[in-house]
Amino acid sequence: MLDSPAICWCGDHLRLLDQRLLPAVLRWTEYDNATAVAAAIGDMVVRGAPAIGISAAYGIALSARRLGDDACQAALANDFRLMAASRPTAVNLAWALKRLEPICQRLSGKLLGDALVDEACCIHQEDQQINQRIGALGAALLPDGARVYTHCNAGALATGGYGTALGIIRTAWQRGRLSHVYAGETRPWFQGSRLTAWEMAEAGIPATILIDSAAAQLMARGQVDAIITGADRIAANGDTANKIGTYALAVLAHHHGIPFIIAAPTATIDRDLQEGAHIPIEERNTDEVRMFAGHTLAPDKIPAVNPVFDVTPANLISAIVTERGVVQSPNASGISMLFRNS
Amino acid sequence: MLDSPAICWCGDHLRLLDQRLLPAVLRWTEYDNATAVAAAIGDMVVRGAPAIGISAAYGIALSARRLGDDACQAALANDFRLMAASRPTAVNLAWALKRLEPICQRLSGKLLGDALVDEACCIHQEDQQINQRIGALGAALLPDGARVYTHCNAGALATGGYGTALGIIRTAWQRGRLSHVYAGETRPWFQGSRLTAWEMAEAGIPATILIDSAAAQLMARGQVDAIITGADRIAANGDTANKIGTYALAVLAHHHGIPFIIAAPTATIDRDLQEGAHIPIEERNTDEVRMFAGHTLAPDKIPAVNPVFDVTPANLISAIVTERGVVQSPNASGISMLFRNS
Repeated sequence: MLDSPAICWCGDHLRLLDQRLLPAVLRWTEYDNATAVAAAIGDMVVRGAPAIGISAAYGIALSARRLGDDACQAALANDFRLMAASRPTAVNLAWALKRLEPICQRLSGKLLGDALVDEACCIHQEDQQINQRIGALGAALLPDGARVYTHCNAGALATGGYGTALGIIRTAWQRGRLSHVYAGETRPWFQGSRLTAWEMAEAGIPATILIDSAAAQLMARGQVDAIITGADRIAANGDTANKIGTYALAVLAHHHGIPFIIAAPTATIDRDLQEGAHIPIEERNTDEVRMFAGHTLAPDKIPAVNPVFDVTPANLISAIVTERGVVQSPNASGISMLFRNS
Repeated sequence: MLDSPAICWCGDHLRLLDQRLLPAVLRWTEYDNATAVAAAIGDMVVRGAPAIGISAAYGIALSARRLGDDACQAALANDFRLMAASRPTAVNLAWALKRLEPICQRLSGKLLGDALVDEACCIHQEDQQINQRIGALGAALLPDGARVYTHCNAGALATGGYGTALGIIRTAWQRGRLSHVYAGETRPWFQGSRLTAWEMAEAGIPATILIDSAAAQLMARGQVDAIITGADRIAANGDTANKIGTYALAVLAHHHGIPFIIAAPTATIDRDLQEGAHIPIEERNTDEVRMFAGHTLAPDKIPAVNPVFDVTPANLISAIVTERGVVQSPNASGISMLFRNS
């Protein structure tokens, strides 16, 4: 059994913590097939680029196990397609599926199922180690007593455990280098006030939540020493797609002379994309903006837009922290240096 | 009977539209004394700097009417204090009360009550004319086919009628110079998605709502030609306090080379304050951020901050549009020119 705050592999099924219900309710749901896991990703039961990749790998493994000796390439290929289409922006999903492909070509039957489970567990476990490494490398970038602002949730819940942006925050806290965390609530899903705040409460790290549009005032008052977020996809030149609102924070950080740091595993880097303009941006149902818990927030006649991510150009990013090292003032050559031995 | 979308003077009582319930419910509440009107202002039944000033004037008039021949300076002075303390940031409230003071010193009994009602009605009616003038002056600043982004609600609901920022939008629309309005939802009270969207739907002006932190992406995509907001207090040098989130929009507008326009009556200008740093910023109950409609958005252990306004420095403002004229690139000398004949 490989356990983490949001994803638990139970030997013959997958358990996911329903992140839509936190912090009010802790409910785990069990999954035994790829279709259900793909739906859980699409419906945001599990979210966060690394966590989506890990869940997708387990989903495909479950599928191969169920198909057993009857496992035909066509059925499995269909599950790969379904999984790949569940969310469009995070590249970790495609990356995880790509790791499984050669195994599917090499093995079949029970051997294939077991090998895919092993590989999914390996991706899960590696991600925890990667986050620890990101935490150590990132914490070294912060000044003593740092007050860090973060957006959305790039924590244990969004990854295999520990977190990327929150991994840096956790390590800095353990080393006595961090004094406070500000978590933007992150509309429309409130991942900041619901999930990041929950992780900070569990870890005993002092934190305060605020509406996203109050971040600028905190910066103007000199209350923020660094901004750290995760990433859903990083282009080859360092342009970074992350939760909607990240780009605004990067512009504000630039205006106030505050370091703006991205924390992500190298699996988040899409070397096939030259720049951020080519990253597909998911648009979700506008009822996520127009309604809340059954309450109408807007008149029927007025439409909404609901882009889930935005792209921050590399020139607004101070550093990208990966498990392979830190890229300061990222650009194409800095990013490519991460892969020089691979 | 002086009527406007949010405030209705009915001869012997005041009716206020409960703006907390829009757009789902249209409920009017009646008020016959100053204490209840002050509570309605504090609880945000009525909001918006000009609308607060008008409501406060009616509240004091109601108080003088009730006291009648027994009206003693002490009782009335107490109502003035109560009203002045109901919300701290908007200066229009203090400005309206100041207009009533000389009348209280000159008259008493029934004459005083009638004179205060007349003055309150006059403030209300003047505000409608002021908004029309702001609309005309501001619309002339926009390019043809303008796509305008606005924050919070500086519309008919926030004023004596017509609106300041939305007054410009209404006039530009009537003149065929406006193609689209983007309304930021404006957390935590959703005045953008609830109130501005409602006004746009009623007026038949094409509009789209979005979460506040998506504004930057719209700007980066070249979809915004101007940003127009209202103001709650403008210092003598042009620094402007307005709904939290306004400052972030001004920084983003500056970064993207988009005109950032403030629309407000001269009653919003506090000539006694040299600069914005001295403007008192209201902090409201943090449950407005931590809860929504009875739903918990954050864990108990994590506190929130809930500043209601922020201050945009004059150097980020392209123009301040008042009924007395437009101040381009505002500074102390430009602002003082508005008052050269008064």
